[in-house]
Amino acid sequence: MNFTSGAAVSELLSLDHIRNQLIRLEDTIIFLLIERAQFAYNKKIYQPGAFQDELNFSGSWLEWFLFEIESFHAKARRYTSPDEHAFTPLDKLPQPIIKPQSLPSLLHQPAAKHPSVNVNHRILDFYIQQIVPGITSTTRIAKGKAVLEDDGNYGSAATRDVEVLQALSRRIHFGMFVSESKFLEAPHDFIPHILNPNPEALAGLITKPAVEAKLLIRLANKARVYGGEMDADGKVVEVADEEMAARGKIDLATIVSMYKDWVIPLTKDVEVDYLLHRLDDVPQSQIEVWMKGKTA
Amino acid sequence: MNFTSGAAVSELLSLDHIRNQLIRLEDTIIFLLIERAQFAYNKKIYQPGAFQDELNFSGSWLEWFLFEIESFHAKARRYTSPDEHAFTPLDKLPQPIIKPQSLPSLLHQPAAKHPSVNVNHRILDFYIQQIVPGITSTTRIAKGKAVLEDDGNYGSAATRDVEVLQALSRRIHFGMFVSESKFLEAPHDFIPHILNPNPEALAGLITKPAVEAKLLIRLANKARVYGGEMDADGKVVEVADEEMAARGKIDLATIVSMYKDWVIPLTKDVEVDYLLHRLDDVPQSQIEVWMKGKTA
Repeated sequence: MNFTSGAAVSELLSLDHIRNQLIRLEDTIIFLLIERAQFAYNKKIYQPGAFQDELNFSGSWLEWFLFEIESFHAKARRYTSPDEHAFTPLDKLPQPIIKPQSLPSLLHQPAAKHPSVNVNHRILDFYIQQIVPGITSTTRIAKGKAVLEDDGNYGSAATRDVEVLQALSRRIHFGMFVSESKFLEAPHDFIPHILNPNPEALAGLITKPAVEAKLLIRLANKARVYGGEMDADGKVVEVADEEMAARGKIDLATIVSMYKDWVIPLTKDVEVDYLLHRLDDVPQSQIEVWMKGKTA
Repeated sequence: MNFTSGAAVSELLSLDHIRNQLIRLEDTIIFLLIERAQFAYNKKIYQPGAFQDELNFSGSWLEWFLFEIESFHAKARRYTSPDEHAFTPLDKLPQPIIKPQSLPSLLHQPAAKHPSVNVNHRILDFYIQQIVPGITSTTRIAKGKAVLEDDGNYGSAATRDVEVLQALSRRIHFGMFVSESKFLEAPHDFIPHILNPNPEALAGLITKPAVEAKLLIRLANKARVYGGEMDADGKVVEVADEEMAARGKIDLATIVSMYKDWVIPLTKDVEVDYLLHRLDDVPQSQIEVWMKGKTA
């Protein structure tokens, strides 16, 4: 979340504010994927131990990048922010060397659950298995030349991977703020399904099919604009969607299906998981106040 | 340069290939500036010693970010690539821990001049003094709210700064490849002005006012597309240029004048400086062969 110092909690948790940030993150994610797609698949950078002799590191080249970048970001207090989740286990990262920002406490954080929901391992999986091969497809023809499977640009590729992964992680874990916001709007609707845990019912309360359908249309429109061809004068060249992968900068279908098949479902898992723990450590008296609000 | 393994030197040094890379870098630079403009100016991150007590580092917060990121990238062999220049002095950075990629030798590298032209300190200056204040101007009104001068997002802002600076540095130092390409096309035109050093004459040989004028138009068109407003459906909203800073995501004028006043002139300096040293360590016999080519 763009935690602007001095903003009120109610404003930060307004659904409007959260939606604007989610919509803005779409631009970031699309553009970062376009940047990644400049380089080849470079499968070797995802294989554990492929650089073990040189790096003295048993993970993959990408995991080494994540570890090194996240080690620095941890020192710069990145992971003290409630919307930031590291891919490297926190106990392997250094402590912040500067004081954490004093941020408003926006989320309910029960003592037993730390550091809240973290689905980064699932993000890493779908990104490596589905997204990278999709946007760097070797069947893609760029500027009339077949794209290589491996172009040796391992550093450039992994740098972009880290940026995409961090943006996807923020987008998906933002679900916690969506859940908190919706919970506070009508706690009595959620409480019965939390006390008698019913993930499906909770998912039903937060799912808005019309909003999701609109998101996918918006996303395709954005990818068409950002990933489209421009001529030497910077004028947008009209290209049919199915030609974009071949002629433009990105495969439109991969971006849309990434949101449909992975980003939206994983966000929902984060949202439901957050709600299931929303009453942990909450005193019974507070729950009763919320339930009375139903008829107030 | 996107050093695709196996590509021939002649192809990599073709002006077409170089121009395509320069045009592609415009997209990257515009988008990264848009990303940076999400955060406040945060002047404190550019002040040397402002975080000295916490960081035990006498430079600025941004210089600390550059040092840490570049230390890692040095280990990952980034600065063994001829188009990559670190902002941190190379003797303060670690050695690569993996073998450098075997890259074709595209540039003339006389022994006495290492690591070729480096104008990064000038890039850092104009970026901090002119560009960051321009794109984060406090007179800018975003979504009806005045933008803060300091939003406390020091890590997010500096992370984007590093990315912008690295892209600008690649763009500007690409001038070396432009020079090499143009030199090899007609060495006899350049040789007299190198032997009897005449920077103005060399600048004249590589300056194409029509190309520069076209670049600025293209750049504005791109900034209009990437930085424009989109509605919730992802449809582009038409906004007058002068309103873009207030309503869109970026100040159009800052981007165009950045290229006009800084990127293009600095690139030219790199190009001329490269040419001035193009004959260092070159045997007289080779120079004679080139001069004979004039009449061949």
